[in-house]
Amino acid sequence: MDESRLLAHIYARAAGTVPEGVLVGPGDDCAVIESASGAPPLLLTVDQLIEGRHFEPDTLFDRIAHKAIARSVSDLAAMGGAPIGALCAASLPASFTRDDELFDHAHRAAGALACPLIGGDIARTTGPLTLSITAIGRAHAMRGPVLRSDARPGDDLYLTGRLGGSFESGRHLSFTPRLGEGTALCDTLGHHLGAMIDLSDGLGRDAGRIALASSVRLEIETALVPMHEGVKDWRRAVADGEDYELLFTARAEVPRTVAGTTIVRIGRVVAGEGCIAIDPEGHHHDIAHAGWDHTA
Amino acid sequence: MDESRLLAHIYARAAGTVPEGVLVGPGDDCAVIESASGAPPLLLTVDQLIEGRHFEPDTLFDRIAHKAIARSVSDLAAMGGAPIGALCAASLPASFTRDDELFDHAHRAAGALACPLIGGDIARTTGPLTLSITAIGRAHAMRGPVLRSDARPGDDLYLTGRLGGSFESGRHLSFTPRLGEGTALCDTLGHHLGAMIDLSDGLGRDAGRIALASSVRLEIETALVPMHEGVKDWRRAVADGEDYELLFTARAEVPRTVAGTTIVRIGRVVAGEGCIAIDPEGHHHDIAHAGWDHTA
Repeated sequence: MDESRLLAHIYARAAGTVPEGVLVGPGDDCAVIESASGAPPLLLTVDQLIEGRHFEPDTLFDRIAHKAIARSVSDLAAMGGAPIGALCAASLPASFTRDDELFDHAHRAAGALACPLIGGDIARTTGPLTLSITAIGRAHAMRGPVLRSDARPGDDLYLTGRLGGSFESGRHLSFTPRLGEGTALCDTLGHHLGAMIDLSDGLGRDAGRIALASSVRLEIETALVPMHEGVKDWRRAVADGEDYELLFTARAEVPRTVAGTTIVRIGRVVAGEGCIAIDPEGHHHDIAHAGWDHTA
Repeated sequence: MDESRLLAHIYARAAGTVPEGVLVGPGDDCAVIESASGAPPLLLTVDQLIEGRHFEPDTLFDRIAHKAIARSVSDLAAMGGAPIGALCAASLPASFTRDDELFDHAHRAAGALACPLIGGDIARTTGPLTLSITAIGRAHAMRGPVLRSDARPGDDLYLTGRLGGSFESGRHLSFTPRLGEGTALCDTLGHHLGAMIDLSDGLGRDAGRIALASSVRLEIETALVPMHEGVKDWRRAVADGEDYELLFTARAEVPRTVAGTTIVRIGRVVAGEGCIAIDPEGHHHDIAHAGWDHTA
């Protein structure tokens, strides 16, 4: 069962059973929990980083720690939120002896991302080193949590930064989650900001998630998609994954830069379903299933 | 580095860096996060369940799912809290094909423990099946979070239920976290309830954690410790682990049962440090380091 089908299954199981006080259950970047008396809702997300899958065995600890924390913080950014703190559950191979060093790096990386470690768990495994990072944050006070399900036909589609080649370049280990950008977009656009997601599994697959959650169709013009130096083919930008840029829709004028990062319009939202890329020759490509499947 | 040393290292690194809004950082059963305007603080905890370590490979999914969720819910109970929801991060072997079935069980187990799944992450691993469960809850409205650090000399030491033989009996797969008991103790005793912890790693080691956090000495009379049928030696009750009973201190009369569970006085809190067991012959045994080390 691929991840999309499995997640759909999990969401379906959860439908109708989201408990009181839980505003958003499974199926978005974060779960959203109601706060008392008008305070911003809380955001909660978990992500795993596995040796041999998300990083090579010889990767430096500071990079491993940074990537682990940054992935979860990126999910907070995708909701327009701000971090409060993180929990780190570490499964360490029996032969691994540098626990304290790894945790020092996790502590530093979390602090540097304004998401300090506030708890955790350690266990020994016969498998690869695995870090499971839970991040908790607060939604934007004025805008509230920015969901995947708030895109509307007529919105334009925007992207922070550039895409492609994250693995070869090592950017997947050193990227900066778009926290400041997410907050600035909420500040500037308020409810003219529609849906938002962070691009972990590739533009195609993640845009497909907005389309599905919002019951709309996303049309991306490949010629508009900014690519990193050395990335020549739009298919790579669509499918490589691990960019951790923000993809969002808006129904008002969007600044050209937020928090120092360039924003580019790459397409639009129309009635329908799915996500297509339109190449310079005008050909349409179904890209909602292109990209990285974590369960494959 | 053993788990105690490693955790001490992590706590020391975190000391002085607990961010605003975080009332308790690493070092207790849960992290504690301030809520807005007088609402009960939030509790946050994570625990891992690893195939071959915390359960045998042929264990039924309903048992695996129950144990995974129940361990984290038990940490909420240990603070006197009530669950809100859980996140499930699953690392699944590539050959594993029953994802949907496993998540159905996780969903059911979480619902049955009043801690519904509200999010998660799935990844493939070359290692064993691993579930990392984050639970979020609310502290008791009147008592607040019950910490490990609130034992005082003069308190008596109490235990819910009985100890020992959790693995052989299969109880480690089917135990009920003492949620109702934790809440009832807060209701009944209020601030006469001192420190509390759930017994995951064995009475000795976990009592040692209260002693360390509270800067006190715990004295346990082995003749008073209730043991499960078939457990003959108090050393097993002290060291077996995975009982998930509540150990707590109190400075007022304690009911003989709470939420249908028998409460027994097993010792007292005195000035000093460490944790000792006093056997029927009056011999003292240092037991603060007896028990289950998850990193060994």
